[in-house]
Amino acid sequence: MYQSLSSIPNIPESNLPRVVIIGGGFGGLKLARDLNKKPFQVILLDKNNYHQFQPLFYQVATAGLEPSAISFPLRKIFHNSKNVIFRMTEVQSVDTDRKKIFTEAGYLDYDYLVLAMGADTNYFGAKNIEYFASPMKTVSEALYIRNKIIHNYEKAINIEKPENRRALMNVVIVGGGPTGVELAGAMADLRNTVLPKDYPELSFKNMKIVLIEAGPAVLAPMSDEARSHSLKYLEDLGVEVMLNTKVSDYDGKQVFLEGKEPIETETLLWAAGIKPNRIDGLSEDLYARNGRIYVDEYSEIRGLKHVYALGDISLIEDEEHPRGHPQVAQVALQQAKNLGKNLVEIHNGRAPNPFKYKDLGSMATIGRKLAVVDLPFFKFQGFFAWLTWLFVHLMAILGVKNKVFIFMDWSWNYLSFDPSLRLLIKPKYVRESERKELIEEK
Amino acid sequence: MYQSLSSIPNIPESNLPRVVIIGGGFGGLKLARDLNKKPFQVILLDKNNYHQFQPLFYQVATAGLEPSAISFPLRKIFHNSKNVIFRMTEVQSVDTDRKKIFTEAGYLDYDYLVLAMGADTNYFGAKNIEYFASPMKTVSEALYIRNKIIHNYEKAINIEKPENRRALMNVVIVGGGPTGVELAGAMADLRNTVLPKDYPELSFKNMKIVLIEAGPAVLAPMSDEARSHSLKYLEDLGVEVMLNTKVSDYDGKQVFLEGKEPIETETLLWAAGIKPNRIDGLSEDLYARNGRIYVDEYSEIRGLKHVYALGDISLIEDEEHPRGHPQVAQVALQQAKNLGKNLVEIHNGRAPNPFKYKDLGSMATIGRKLAVVDLPFFKFQGFFAWLTWLFVHLMAILGVKNKVFIFMDWSWNYLSFDPSLRLLIKPKYVRESERKELIEEK
Repeated sequence: MYQSLSSIPNIPESNLPRVVIIGGGFGGLKLARDLNKKPFQVILLDKNNYHQFQPLFYQVATAGLEPSAISFPLRKIFHNSKNVIFRMTEVQSVDTDRKKIFTEAGYLDYDYLVLAMGADTNYFGAKNIEYFASPMKTVSEALYIRNKIIHNYEKAINIEKPENRRALMNVVIVGGGPTGVELAGAMADLRNTVLPKDYPELSFKNMKIVLIEAGPAVLAPMSDEARSHSLKYLEDLGVEVMLNTKVSDYDGKQVFLEGKEPIETETLLWAAGIKPNRIDGLSEDLYARNGRIYVDEYSEIRGLKHVYALGDISLIEDEEHPRGHPQVAQVALQQAKNLGKNLVEIHNGRAPNPFKYKDLGSMATIGRKLAVVDLPFFKFQGFFAWLTWLFVHLMAILGVKNKVFIFMDWSWNYLSFDPSLRLLIKPKYVRESERKELIEEK
Repeated sequence: MYQSLSSIPNIPESNLPRVVIIGGGFGGLKLARDLNKKPFQVILLDKNNYHQFQPLFYQVATAGLEPSAISFPLRKIFHNSKNVIFRMTEVQSVDTDRKKIFTEAGYLDYDYLVLAMGADTNYFGAKNIEYFASPMKTVSEALYIRNKIIHNYEKAINIEKPENRRALMNVVIVGGGPTGVELAGAMADLRNTVLPKDYPELSFKNMKIVLIEAGPAVLAPMSDEARSHSLKYLEDLGVEVMLNTKVSDYDGKQVFLEGKEPIETETLLWAAGIKPNRIDGLSEDLYARNGRIYVDEYSEIRGLKHVYALGDISLIEDEEHPRGHPQVAQVALQQAKNLGKNLVEIHNGRAPNPFKYKDLGSMATIGRKLAVVDLPFFKFQGFFAWLTWLFVHLMAILGVKNKVFIFMDWSWNYLSFDPSLRLLIKPKYVRESERKELIEEK
């Protein structure tokens, strides 16, 4: 691997201890914001120049929201900060002995290092699925799904025989977690309301939306009430839910299932698992079998002083959570909050406080007016749950403008039954001149 | 060339005469809408599934508007139409003897054919410029410019020596028409307000925004007042305007000028000329030297009965306009309106009426609060002109939702001085599996 020999330029001089945070997701961004105006020089690195609000990717994929509504420029968040610096770059490796990380743009020395790189899609070794299926772990991937579906419909309408259109029209979603459930609900809404108006020449009665889950329930970690209601809501919307069903293979046209008939589809959306992102330079024995990094109750990586891991990539095994905490935004946010406070304590020579996860509950929305909500002492489902879901997500979105615009978008879509973002804006492919440059840069 | 042997499937049977319109730009879309509920089966074809509002591309390029705000799904426009059908496909050729057009999806018979394919960027044969410069004739290209500029800044900040950053920071725009002027003004606004906040480590005093025009004035076809005011407004914003200056070459790093020092820039925006799009199958002598198609005062192509051309690709030489009408939206819209009426007249066995262009005036905006407006009997400049510009463009945008959202975006940007769309959302490149499929389709 190429390791740059010079340090990243144009970083202001500072006498403060330096905290380098890798990843601007929920955990990394929260920590950087909490360390604003604290006695550290904070350098936040991300391969994108924006924070992505993952819980709403499914709305980008189903033409309800623009990518920009749920992506927030990281530089803008720190416009008025004097001690937080952002750089867009890919991190290549870490040298914990010399306290350096290496990036595309040069190396950086650190006093404290925080790994918050999140997770990517896990295909569990199924190469064909990785090759043909569509993942949804970035806003670009969500946009790609939207474009793919529109493109498939524009293709289908130019095909004479209905049986030859089936694979283009069917949508199969694998994974009965919140992502899969929310995608399936939104897809069903599209099929039931918008698509028949867009494509009056096609018959939508035969369009299948299938949600496949290997286990015995959708939304497995939620309450019985949430599970049974969400299943009912999905079936009411016309989603075919296949529980206890395993995908064995996919060739781009047909999904093969263990012990069941294959399903024809050119659109297999894979939301069945995640795997933590890795960085070179960490010893293999720091990783658990699922790829998460063992950290102690201060989020410090075992045996590595002042090197921390947050969120999806970290694994704290405590009595209450012998297999670690769930890989959700809440854990990352709370871990970041705890670490932010602890860094200040450590800096002041005081003892840090152990991380204690407080489960605030979980929720999922199904279609455009129903949701299931589990709060610690209260569970409810239906329209009021959906309003709760709306409010909680709106509040969690960064920035007043994004809140206002998303609220308007949602109101508009709700009233008009007609999300208007069915645009197949094809990316302009990298031209020869750029490609050459990209190759030269490597 | 491949010519499909079967007709485009799933087109409803109809006894009505068929009008095929190629291109959903200002002219083609206006005609299709005017023929809604008229006694024709109208088939509108476009290679994109949306109408693009070209006058605001520059705001997409400068992070002021989202592509979706100025792109309108063509299917949606005709949701409630019984006689207008849309298909997304690329047209390959026309056979005017057999009254057929050939597309990717099959052929179509027509009774009336309307060519409204608009124009693309003209590099006047300069291959290096075509290879290295960035055009802005589609919303994808506008988005590409936005991404390129952000990417260049993220690169610049990782470069140590200021002199090595210059080419990444400078922006050179060629062409002093409305597109070039509006781009230059919006770029200057970005430089003066937003970029220094985003990149506090960089010095913006040395960032050049240069507008190059081969002739002696910007906005040449407008009034003297408009020309002199726009020049002053641009210079007040810090744009370096170089009149009577010709670009001789570009190598991706430096723009070479005839008789002047070259300028370092990796961002050359080319708005210096357009050339009409072509379709195979028309005789060469139907084209004027500038690539426009000779049509008579009914927009009918010389010698081809019931084959028409509208807008940028058409050329009507009349006494008032011996060199043809300007290639602007107004001409296309008025031609389409005239043709829509004439088709009904012809259908009813009556004589068509000749096209008469009524110049409604022209306008251009410079930066975020100034504009120049020429109305037929009244010319004005400044802030009130800018409000007029805003109002006229807002009214011309399709759809209530787009109007509302653009108005909110503009108000927000105006009040906050901070367009929020500085997101480098990288297109997810076509993967191997898709690429294979695309190749197989050819």
